[in-house]
Amino acid sequence: MHYFPKVAVITVLGAGMMGSALCVPLIDRGHEVRLVGTHLDASIVERLLKDRVHPNMGIAFPAELRVYPFERFDEALSGAELVGLGVSSEGVRWAARTLAPHFGTTLPTDVPILSIAKGLESGADGLAILPDAFREELPAPLQERIHPVGVAGPCIAGELARRVDTCVVFAGRDRAPVARCAALARGDYYHVFESTDVVGVETCAALKNAYAMGIAFAAGQHAASGGKPGSIARHNYESAVFAQSVVEMQQIVALLGGDPRSAAGLAGAGDLDVTTNGGRTGRFGAHLGSGIGVAGAIQAMQGATLECLHILRTMRDAVSRLEAAGTISPHDLPLLRHMAEVALDDRPVAMPFDRFFGAHP
Amino acid sequence: MHYFPKVAVITVLGAGMMGSALCVPLIDRGHEVRLVGTHLDASIVERLLKDRVHPNMGIAFPAELRVYPFERFDEALSGAELVGLGVSSEGVRWAARTLAPHFGTTLPTDVPILSIAKGLESGADGLAILPDAFREELPAPLQERIHPVGVAGPCIAGELARRVDTCVVFAGRDRAPVARCAALARGDYYHVFESTDVVGVETCAALKNAYAMGIAFAAGQHAASGGKPGSIARHNYESAVFAQSVVEMQQIVALLGGDPRSAAGLAGAGDLDVTTNGGRTGRFGAHLGSGIGVAGAIQAMQGATLECLHILRTMRDAVSRLEAAGTISPHDLPLLRHMAEVALDDRPVAMPFDRFFGAHP
Repeated sequence: MHYFPKVAVITVLGAGMMGSALCVPLIDRGHEVRLVGTHLDASIVERLLKDRVHPNMGIAFPAELRVYPFERFDEALSGAELVGLGVSSEGVRWAARTLAPHFGTTLPTDVPILSIAKGLESGADGLAILPDAFREELPAPLQERIHPVGVAGPCIAGELARRVDTCVVFAGRDRAPVARCAALARGDYYHVFESTDVVGVETCAALKNAYAMGIAFAAGQHAASGGKPGSIARHNYESAVFAQSVVEMQQIVALLGGDPRSAAGLAGAGDLDVTTNGGRTGRFGAHLGSGIGVAGAIQAMQGATLECLHILRTMRDAVSRLEAAGTISPHDLPLLRHMAEVALDDRPVAMPFDRFFGAHP
Repeated sequence: MHYFPKVAVITVLGAGMMGSALCVPLIDRGHEVRLVGTHLDASIVERLLKDRVHPNMGIAFPAELRVYPFERFDEALSGAELVGLGVSSEGVRWAARTLAPHFGTTLPTDVPILSIAKGLESGADGLAILPDAFREELPAPLQERIHPVGVAGPCIAGELARRVDTCVVFAGRDRAPVARCAALARGDYYHVFESTDVVGVETCAALKNAYAMGIAFAAGQHAASGGKPGSIARHNYESAVFAQSVVEMQQIVALLGGDPRSAAGLAGAGDLDVTTNGGRTGRFGAHLGSGIGVAGAIQAMQGATLECLHILRTMRDAVSRLEAAGTISPHDLPLLRHMAEVALDDRPVAMPFDRFFGAHP
C-alpha cells in the first residue's frame, strides 16, 4: 500500500468542494497540484487566489496549491501526469469534450483520468455509468485508450480537506489506470482501495443519494409528530430502511452486470452511512417525511442541488423498462418505487415495510 | 404477510427491556401475554404490578399485560402456545434448564421458543450460537424436537414499546417454528421476516456490539482533540469502519457456515446502523477513542453491561484457533483484531485502515 512514486504534476478541473478537497492529500504527497476552476467557479477561484480560503468550505488550503482560472486551462494542463475531474455529473460530457483535443498534444494519450462525479445516465440502451459517458464524448480512437477512473466511498469534502482519515475506492474498467491513480493519490490519511467493478461501484455511488433520502423520512415524521431527536426516536425505522437500501443496491448492481459485493463495501454501505449522517440529501428526506410536500421540501432546501431527484427519475425509467422486459417483477425494489412516489409524485410517506426483503404479502 | 392466526396464550420469561417491549406488539395482536420476571427482575415486576410502568424504560405498558413474579412461573406457563425468552446471553442455559421439565407436561413438546438473547459462546468445538446452547441443556429426546428461534435486526426496545415501525428477522434451524413464531408476532408495526440462516443471523447479532464499539472510536478521538459534533467531524472515518465491519461480518459468517448475505441485511448492516445511533456500546467506544484507557472507559459507563467485551474475548479465541488451523491468514479481520487490542489489551486506537478490504501493505 505504501508505494509512493515520484512526485508528479496533477491538474484538477473543477473547484467545487470535492474537487478542491481532493487536492489536499495530493499536495501532502508532494505532487505539484494545479486546481482549475470551470466557468462556474469564477468566484471560488478569485477567493482562493486572494487568501487560499475556499468560500464554500471556510477553510484555508495549503500554500502549495496552484490555482488557475478557466482561461488558463491549457497552461495548467501542460505536463500533467494525472487529470482529476472535479465536475458534477452534468459536467462529465462537457469535460470530455473539453479535454479531447488535448490527448496526444498537451497530454499523453495514456494520461489517467480520475473523476469524482457521481450519477447514472438514462440512455436508449438503458443505464450508463459516468466513466462510460465520458468515453462516449471522445473520438473513436481515444475511446480505446482512455478508461476514466471513478472515486467512490464515504468522503465528506470538508473532512478530507481537514485530513480526517478517509477510505475511498478507485474503480475503472482497466486495472492499469486504476493502479496508477491509486499509487499517486494514496497517503497517510487518504486510504485508496482499487476495484475493476466500475459498474457496481459507480451504481452504488449514484444510488446512495436516493436511499439516504428515504432513510431520512423517519426523522421528519418523528419531528412532525412532536418527537425530539435522541436515543429513542425512530431509529428502528431508519435502520430497517438502511438494510433494505443495501439489499436493493445489491439487486440493482447485479441487474446492471456489476458485482453485488460492492454494495456491502465502501461505495455502498459505507457511502450510504456517511450520507445519512448529515448532508443535504438527508435534510431533504426529512422535509419530505414531515409532510410539507415536494414543493415545500424543495423550497426549504433553498436552491441546494438535489441529486436524489435526478437519480430517482433515472431509476424509475430503468425500472419500468426492466419490468416490461420481464427482468424484474412488480415485487422487486419496493423501497425505490416508494421513494419515487414520494419525491416525484408528491405522495405521502407510507413505507412498504411488509414488502421489504423479498416478502410479498 | 398479514396472516393473523387466532389469539394465543404467550408467556415471556424475563422482564428486561427487550423482553418486556416484545410484549407490546403481541398484546396489540390480541394475544394473552404473560410476562414473568426472573429472580433478577423482582423490582421491575413490583413496579409493573403497581402502575404498569417499566422502571428502566419509563413508559406505561398496556393494561392487558399480565405480570407474574418468578414464583408464579408454573402458573404463567400453563397453556402457553409460544414461550418468549427475554433473558440475556448469560441466562440462556439457565432458561433451558428451567423450561426442560415443562416440555411434555405444562407445555406441548412442540411449543415454539422465541429468544431475544444475542451472543456467541466459545466452546471446545469452536463458536456456538445461543439457540444451540439452549438445546444442549435439554434432555436428548427433546433436542430433536425443540429448535429455538432467535430474534435479530435493528430494534431499540424503547422504540418498539412505543410502537415505532420495526423490522426484525426470526431465524431458526427448523422452518416450522420460525413460521409459527412469525405468524403469531407480526403486526401493523412489528414487521417480521423469516430465515433459516440461524448461524448467519445469530453471528451478526452478536458481532454488531463489537463493531459498533469500533465505529465509535472516531467520535471519541474527535471530541478529545477539541472537535465538536456536527456535519464536519470524523464521519469519513466512522463510515469506513462501518463498511469494513460489514465486510468482516460477511467473512466471519461464511467461516462459521452461515450465509454471508445475512450480514448485508437486517441482522448485520441494519442492526449495526441502529447500534451506532445511540446505545451504550457506542458510548463505550467513544470513551476508548478519547484515550482514557479501558479502566477509565469502564468506569465512565457506570456499571452498564458491556456485551462488546465478552464478544471480543470470544472472537479473539476463535480467531486464534482459525489461524492456527490455517483457515484464516494473519491479514484477515484487521478491524476485529485491533478492537480486541484496544478494548482488551488497553492499546491506543490506531485504526489499521491500510489493511482494510483485503489489502495488505
